[in-house]
Formats: sequence, C-alpha cells, structure tokens
Amino acid sequence: MPEIITGLKLSEGIGFGSIFISTRAEIEVSETTIDKAQVDKEISAYKESIQHAHIQLRQLRENVGSHLDEDSAAIFDAHIMMLDDPGFNEQIINNINNLYNAQKAIQEAGKSYITKFESLDSEYMKARALDVKDICMRLIANIQGVALTDLTEVDQPVVVVADELTPSASAQLDSKYVKGIITANGGTTSHSAIIARSLNIPAVSGISNIISKVRHGDNVIIDGYSGDVILEPTEVEMAAYSEKQKAQEEREEKLKDYIGKESKTLDGINIRLFANIKGPEDINDVTDNDAEGVGLYRTEFLYMNRMNLPSEEEQFEAYKTVLSETADKPVIIRTLDIGGDKELSYLNLPKESNPFLGERSIRFLLKNEEIFRTQLRALVRASEHGNLKVMFPMVTTIDEFNRAKALLIEEKQQFEAENDLELSDIAVGIMVETPSAAMISDQLAKHVDFFSIGTNDLIQYTMAADRLNDQVSDLYQPYHPSVLGLIKKVIDSGRSNNKWVGVCGEMACDFKSIALLIGFGIDELSVSPKSLLSIREYVSGIKKTDMEHLSEEVLSCDSAEDVLYLIEEHLNLT
Amino acid sequence: MPEIITGLKLSEGIGFGSIFISTRAEIEVSETTIDKAQVDKEISAYKESIQHAHIQLRQLRENVGSHLDEDSAAIFDAHIMMLDDPGFNEQIINNINNLYNAQKAIQEAGKSYITKFESLDSEYMKARALDVKDICMRLIANIQGVALTDLTEVDQPVVVVADELTPSASAQLDSKYVKGIITANGGTTSHSAIIARSLNIPAVSGISNIISKVRHGDNVIIDGYSGDVILEPTEVEMAAYSEKQKAQEEREEKLKDYIGKESKTLDGINIRLFANIKGPEDINDVTDNDAEGVGLYRTEFLYMNRMNLPSEEEQFEAYKTVLSETADKPVIIRTLDIGGDKELSYLNLPKESNPFLGERSIRFLLKNEEIFRTQLRALVRASEHGNLKVMFPMVTTIDEFNRAKALLIEEKQQFEAENDLELSDIAVGIMVETPSAAMISDQLAKHVDFFSIGTNDLIQYTMAADRLNDQVSDLYQPYHPSVLGLIKKVIDSGRSNNKWVGVCGEMACDFKSIALLIGFGIDELSVSPKSLLSIREYVSGIKKTDMEHLSEEVLSCDSAEDVLYLIEEHLNLT
Repeated sequence: MPEIITGLKLSEGIGFGSIFISTRAEIEVSETTIDKAQVDKEISAYKESIQHAHIQLRQLRENVGSHLDEDSAAIFDAHIMMLDDPGFNEQIINNINNLYNAQKAIQEAGKSYITKFESLDSEYMKARALDVKDICMRLIANIQGVALTDLTEVDQPVVVVADELTPSASAQLDSKYVKGIITANGGTTSHSAIIARSLNIPAVSGISNIISKVRHGDNVIIDGYSGDVILEPTEVEMAAYSEKQKAQEEREEKLKDYIGKESKTLDGINIRLFANIKGPEDINDVTDNDAEGVGLYRTEFLYMNRMNLPSEEEQFEAYKTVLSETADKPVIIRTLDIGGDKELSYLNLPKESNPFLGERSIRFLLKNEEIFRTQLRALVRASEHGNLKVMFPMVTTIDEFNRAKALLIEEKQQFEAENDLELSDIAVGIMVETPSAAMISDQLAKHVDFFSIGTNDLIQYTMAADRLNDQVSDLYQPYHPSVLGLIKKVIDSGRSNNKWVGVCGEMACDFKSIALLIGFGIDELSVSPKSLLSIREYVSGIKKTDMEHLSEEVLSCDSAEDVLYLIEEHLNLT
Repeated sequence: MPEIITGLKLSEGIGFGSIFISTRAEIEVSETTIDKAQVDKEISAYKESIQHAHIQLRQLRENVGSHLDEDSAAIFDAHIMMLDDPGFNEQIINNINNLYNAQKAIQEAGKSYITKFESLDSEYMKARALDVKDICMRLIANIQGVALTDLTEVDQPVVVVADELTPSASAQLDSKYVKGIITANGGTTSHSAIIARSLNIPAVSGISNIISKVRHGDNVIIDGYSGDVILEPTEVEMAAYSEKQKAQEEREEKLKDYIGKESKTLDGINIRLFANIKGPEDINDVTDNDAEGVGLYRTEFLYMNRMNLPSEEEQFEAYKTVLSETADKPVIIRTLDIGGDKELSYLNLPKESNPFLGERSIRFLLKNEEIFRTQLRALVRASEHGNLKVMFPMVTTIDEFNRAKALLIEEKQQFEAENDLELSDIAVGIMVETPSAAMISDQLAKHVDFFSIGTNDLIQYTMAADRLNDQVSDLYQPYHPSVLGLIKKVIDSGRSNNKWVGVCGEMACDFKSIALLIGFGIDELSVSPKSLLSIREYVSGIKKTDMEHLSEEVLSCDSAEDVLYLIEEHLNLT
C-alpha cells in the first residue's frame, strides 16, 4: 500500500532505494559502581578509550576529507578538540574517583553537557549536544570493545532512515550507495543537512517517528524537491518519479546553453547575476555555473565549527583563494555576520532576550574592534589578488558605516605604509537589512559605493516577525506592499545617486520577485550558484518595460495576496 | 563628608530623612532532619503556619487597600493564591515525609521554585521569585514565632534603604513617614517601584551594595528626578534641594492655571491632549489634570498579577467605571497587549527565541479567539456607558485589522440581538507600531477610524534594536530620520484620508518631539496624566507654522544627532 509522507526539504534531488534503518542499538551501561581499589584501573580504561578515539577520529577525518569538503570534515576537528577539553576530562575523572565505573562516569559527564546545551534555545548549541552524545557513545563503545558504525556495510542503493544522524555517521555516507536520507529530527542547518547537500544526496527531515512507520528493506522514493517520501511505491509511481528525475536532469543539461551568455532582458537591460558562497569550497560551483561574480561571501563560516577565532593568516588564505580563483570578477566579501541566530560559543557572549534585535553583525564588530581589525587586515592583504569589494552587514545608521569604513581605511593605510606600496581603492558597500537603512537610503547612498538588499532580515524587521518562529510564519511576507515599498525606495535612492543596487536574500531566487525587482530597476541579483543558470534563462525571457507598470501597481496593494495575484495575472499575460 | 551616588530613577520627587536600613535579619533554619515519629507534628506545624499566613495576608491586604490602589493591594491576592497552590503544598509535605523538618521543607520547596523563576529571562518571573521568597520567609517566621516586619515602627521622616523590598514590606510603606526609598535591586516594573509611584514616594534603585555604603540614622537626600542620592548632605545642599523641591511645588501649582483651558498653539491649532491609564484607579489623575480624554487604556494590567484570566464581568466593571467616570470624553481602550516583554504565566505560552518578534498582542488575540471575544463582549457591553473607541495593538497587515474588527462587530450584533437594542457605532482604530503598518498607512487609513502611533515599538523595529537591551541602547534613537520619516508618513496618510492621528508613546511626552509632531500635523497626544498640564503649557507657547519647515528639514538629516541639533537651534530661535 503506497503512502506519502511529507517532511522538510533538506537537500534536493530524487532518490530510489530500499530502506536502511540506522538505529544504533543504544549502548547499555550496566555496572555502575566500583570499589576504591578499582579506581586506577577504570581511569586507565578511560584514558585508553580517549587514545583510541583520537586515532579513530583522525582516520575518519582523513577518509571523509577525500569525498567531502573541508567544512564537513572539520566536524571531526571539533570532536577531537572536545576529547582534549580539560573540563570534560576533569568531570569524568572526578566521577570515577566518586566510584562510578569509567562507562558510567563518561555517560554522566556527557549528560550534564548535553542537558546544558539542549536547554539553550539555539540550533547551534543543540548541534553541539549531538556532538557530545556522539563522542560519549564512541568512548563507551571503545571501552566495551564494540564497533560503532554500520553504514559502511551498505553495498546496494539504500535510503537511510534514522531519528537523527550523528555527525560521525553522516560523515560516512557514500553517495555511491546512499540515495537518500530521511530523519525525524535535524533542521536545515544540521550536520546531516550540510553534508547531504555537499554530497548531492536528497534529504528530507522532520517526519516524527519515521522509524516506526517503515520497515527495513522496503522500497521507498525520496523527493528532495517537494519533501515527499513515498513508501512502497507502485510501478506507476516509480515510473513517474523516474520521469521527474530524468526531466530534471534534462533541464539541467539544457540550462548549460546559458553558460557564457549575458544576463540580459528582451529589451536589452543587463542584470548582473552573482553567486552567494560560504568559502573557497564553493568556487567550483561559481565557475561551473558561470556566475558573473560573487555577490555575497558569508565569512562567518570561517568562524564556525571551531573552538577559537580564525587567525589573520587563515582568513587571508581563504579570501586570497576566492579572489585569485575568480580572476577579475568582482567578489563582495561580507564582514563577520554573527549574533541573531548565529552564535560563536567560544566567545561566550551574554544571552539576549531578543537576539535578532540585539548586538549582531556590524554592531558586534564595532564593539569588538580587535576581531574586526583582524578581518579587515586579512581583507586588505587579500585585495591585491583580485577584484575585492567589502560589505558591512546590518547597518542601521550612517555613523556605523562611517566608523566601519574608517577602520578599513586605517588598516589599508597601515599595510601600505609597512610594505611601501599602494593598493587600489576598495569599494565599500552595505547590506540593507533594517527598515532604518531603507528609510534613509537616499542619505546613505551619498556615503556608500553600493547597496545589497538582504531581504530575509528586511522582511523580518518590517513585519516584526521572527523569520525562524513558526508561530508567526504567516506574517513573514516577502510580497507585502510594505516590504516592496522599502525595496523600491532603496533602488530609487541608488539610481538617483548613481550607486548600484543588488539583492542577496531569498527574493533574488524567486521568479515572481525577480520580475518585480527588474521592474523596480535592480542592477544585480546574488543567488545560490546552482540556481543561477535558470535565473539567467528567466531574465532572458522577460522585458523590463513590461514589469515597470506592474511594479508601480503593487505598491498600492492592500496585501501580499493582492500583490501575488497581480504578478501572476501579469506574468500570464506577457 | 557629603557623597553623591546616582542610581536608576523609579519614582519622582525629592525627599529628606534619616536612613532606615531595612535588612531583615536572614531567618536561620537550624534543625533540619527529624525522626519518622515527628513527621505528623511537623506537618501540623506547617499547616498552622499556612493558616496564620492566610490571616496575616488578608489583614495586610485590607490595611494597605486603604492607602494604596487596588493594583498594588492585589499583590497580596497573588500571595494568598500561592499559599493554596497544590504543587507547592505537595512538595513541602513530601519534603517532611522525607524527614526534613517543616522549616527546612518550606525552604527547600521555595528554593526550587525560586531557582526556576530566576533562571527565566523575564522581569515578570523574577518578580514572581521574589513573591515566593517572601511567602517562604513568612511561613518559616510563623513557625518560629518571629515577627517579620519592622517598617511599622517608624515614627519620624526616614528614607528606607534595602537590598530589595519584598512585596509585603513595600505594601506597608506609609508616605507620612517614609520620604524616600533607595534599593540595590529592582527595576522600573518591580513591586516597590509601582507602589512608590502610587504613593508619590521618591525612589531610586540600582545602587549596588547600598547597605554597606550607609549608616542607619545618617541624613540623606533622595532626588527621584535625577536618581541622585546625597549622603550626609551639607547645609548648602539641604538648602539647594529644599529650593528645588519648592520650585517644583510652585511649578505644579502654576500649571493648575492650565486646567479648563484649550490645548491650542499660538496660531490656533487644537491639539487634543489625552491621558494614558492602566485602569479605573487612574481616573482621578485624568480628571485632576484635565485630560480631554483617555488616549490609551492599557487593559493588560487587568490580566496581570493574578492566577487566571479576568472574567467578562470583571472586565465589564472596569471598563464601565472608566467610561462612566469620564462622562462624554472619548476613551480609547486598547485590547490585550501581551507577549514581548509582558507575559501571563498562567497561560503557559511557549518560550520564543525573539518574543518581540513573536506572537504578541493582536497576533495572540487572533489565535486565541475565546480570550479575545470575552474582552470584546465586555467592551461592547461597557460601550453603553460612555464614549468608547476600541484600538488594536501591533497591527502589521490589513487582514489582521479586518479580522479583529469583524469579531468586534459580531459580538456587538449578538449583544444587540440578545438584548433587543441598538448600540451606537464604536470607532475602531489601530496602534501603528510596526514599520509595515507605517509603510501601508495610506491603504490602512481607508479601513480604520483612527491611528495612534506607538513610538516605543516603532523605534525598536525600525532600528532593529530591542528597547530593553542595554547593549544596543545607543541604537534606540527616537530622533533618527528613518523613524521620523515613518511617523510623517502615517500622519500624512491620516490627513489625506480624513482620519485623525495621535501618538501614545514616549515621544508624546518630550517637548522636542512634540514640536516636530505638531509640525508634521499630529492631531492628538496621549501622555501620562501627571505631565499633561506642562505639555498644554508648552503647546500654548509655540506656533505650528514655525515647526512646519523644521519638520521637513529633519527628514533629510543624516543622523539623530543632526536632527536634535536642528531642533535645538530652531527652538532657541523661535
């Protein structure tokens, strides 16, 4: 009996296979208390398990490093560092001294970390809890002499089903056999999501009790485009999804025709199509999809999944790689954008009641000048190697922009003086993400070199609706006339001051909003590299003049529904 | 040697007196474990202490009810309810069964509640922790036969100094002798702050280790206008502050000349001056200060400091009292505005990552229709007794307004049908607090009967800066051109659609922003009753035409500093 369950899309694609349930039988910790005389023996057992874990993790890191990007492999660096954490070690030794055996001592120490991390209201810290679970399991398994992983046994096409994949399990996924991943838990920023996407394995999450709903070995189709999971599909369904998969492949092939072409509307307006990246590992995607530049390099990924700040040298190397590998194409590097939903646990920043309205992004950088200056120095040094533009996130006032720019210029002048050279000017722009910046965009345009509208945050603040809070997701409305009015205002300010304006939020990727943005007069769209060619195709098929009237009309609409209705009506007519 | 310490202003006024240190000697709980045989005896002792506490609290409530408003006296209702809380009782009985004596059993149960409440990141829950401390102290003191309070002994002018005042201690303050309150802890929403303001006792808080800095009996001046505390003042200082106090009294006397006058600019523009209230207890202030109406009745106070929702009848009585006691003057009642920083613990709402961007105010009401309908029914019934206007808070979309208004009309029609009568139409407006509402104010103006701009939230969202977060307080800028631009937009939309526009945030109380608002064309200002006459005096001294040019100019300023500079320059010239 076929059954369709719909979950959260984590990674695109269609996969076929038999279900492989990955429930790691919960490792039992039986004996718990020991005699005073056994303390030394248990401490040795614990220390041995740590040594084993070191070897295993280094091995795993090496193995997965060959088929995964550095970012994903770095998960294991975080695990290795946890093994050496003095607080964690001390707690376990204490537990043994208090007459727990080593296994129980590890389990208890782990629990206290996990409880602490899980109680924090943060996706990031919840992922850390999973790391601790994973490490404790490994240490206990080492003491028991039990092997941990099972995914390596797979030698035919499977779709892996699990409550949640531990970081080390997901790092062992091999796209040769693993054709899909279905999990009960794990959001779009979980390790398994990141790894699934980097391996191009379709993945769907958020299906509660998935394990109880399926049987090991049953056939399944996973559709990472829609989030659908088809259990025990009929032949008709198998054929339909094969067709869908084939059509998708054909479409991707056809889009390659747009490589090397300009992104130009039918009436001859050039729209620059740039790519969003998170580091050098995405450069291949940028070139493969013929991006005209990098519109948003999210440097925060350099700072995440580690235990301390990246050095100037590390940053320099990353920026230099991206700049030199993109040749003369413009590369817009955004300075560190943390706070809000992005935490760096090693900075131990105070918890805020409303982090999205708190000390994030440029606010954080201006108050932590040494961190900021380190990044600016790395950027200045890297600027010799390509066409660098620097962008400050979350600017709310002109003063913030001026202070940030002054620091960049100071670092540049100092570097020039120290090395007796003169670098080219670096263009400096801002992300427009706050209603404030949009409202004063005409004044701001006299100071900045360019604007890039970050629609995700702009929508969130304009509608006063947390973009991650399901309770108010109905109010997160990209097409609300208030949001469109602010976007229009920014574009108008840019044009009348001869500064170019781009969009680097989700709205740059949606055909309906692209039509509007072109009508408003946008200069640039920065999108995920994989969607770039389809957007070039779309842009090549519309006329700007057709969109201009529409884009006036939507501003006086009453609601987002009315706007969408107008757009749909209009796009069908043209 | 005189010394000046500056703290947080909690309640205005100047007070002189000798220091009265209110350190309640920490009650020691000595014996802790008991024999099985003693369990019944300890349980009886505990139950007796509860009975005593009931009598004491009812007595206190009655005593303070005579010199305090109902709101403050209601603190004791909350305490009485806590005494009957089954969970609290069960935990104490369990502790005794586990061989703690009654005192220790109470202390431990209290601790677990206090820890839980204090760990929550909420002013409100922290106040609840203080309540629990207070109750446990009372119960233990009852068992020990110790008297708790000392403030009743006072028979000469004193300034009370304490780490923090417990709710029951603050309720015993008598303004006849207590001339000021200085505390180490306690914010502007603490019980002692509320009570100090309602008794007109100057209060200053936030001075850490205040007890160690002063000596019982020393002379002190407290200045609740500036937050200054002058220890051991010289005669010169005594004279200066007496002068300041006298000047203040004279000024208040002089302002009475404005009672009965119109609020009209020199060039004849009427500005309606309304009052903000939190319930019937503020009606005297409204009439004493000759407010032309109530511009904002914050009904959430009806829902706070209690264990369950207020009934339709309770609400009806409160609304009816306000409406009938203000005769024909307009009374704008705002529907329940909770969420954000205002929690109702008895609703057990899920914790949000960014409550200010979450399910608050009208969003909450529309999802909890029964709670909303109860309030709307009470409003409809009360509308017979005065000039009621209803206002919905936090509106972001037109759809929200239309849905809320439809519910009001449904309740009205049903009430009319049931009682075979026809009520007058009720004007329905909104608070403009989100950038979205301001941006679409022209469209909204076609649906609503009036706008009232809630500047506090509008600033917070426009600047993306939590108004309660010290880390970003520099970005909470009422005079930022972006904020002023949105305010101007709302006023323009109101005027061109013939709907009146008011302001009910802090900006309605500041002379500099009042000048701008009048220049923009505001119709109404709703302010705290006590500042109303000074605003009438101010309005009577300026010309709207003088302000119009200024209000154009500020919109193209680069920053809030530039705006303030322009205003100050302009106001000195005129």
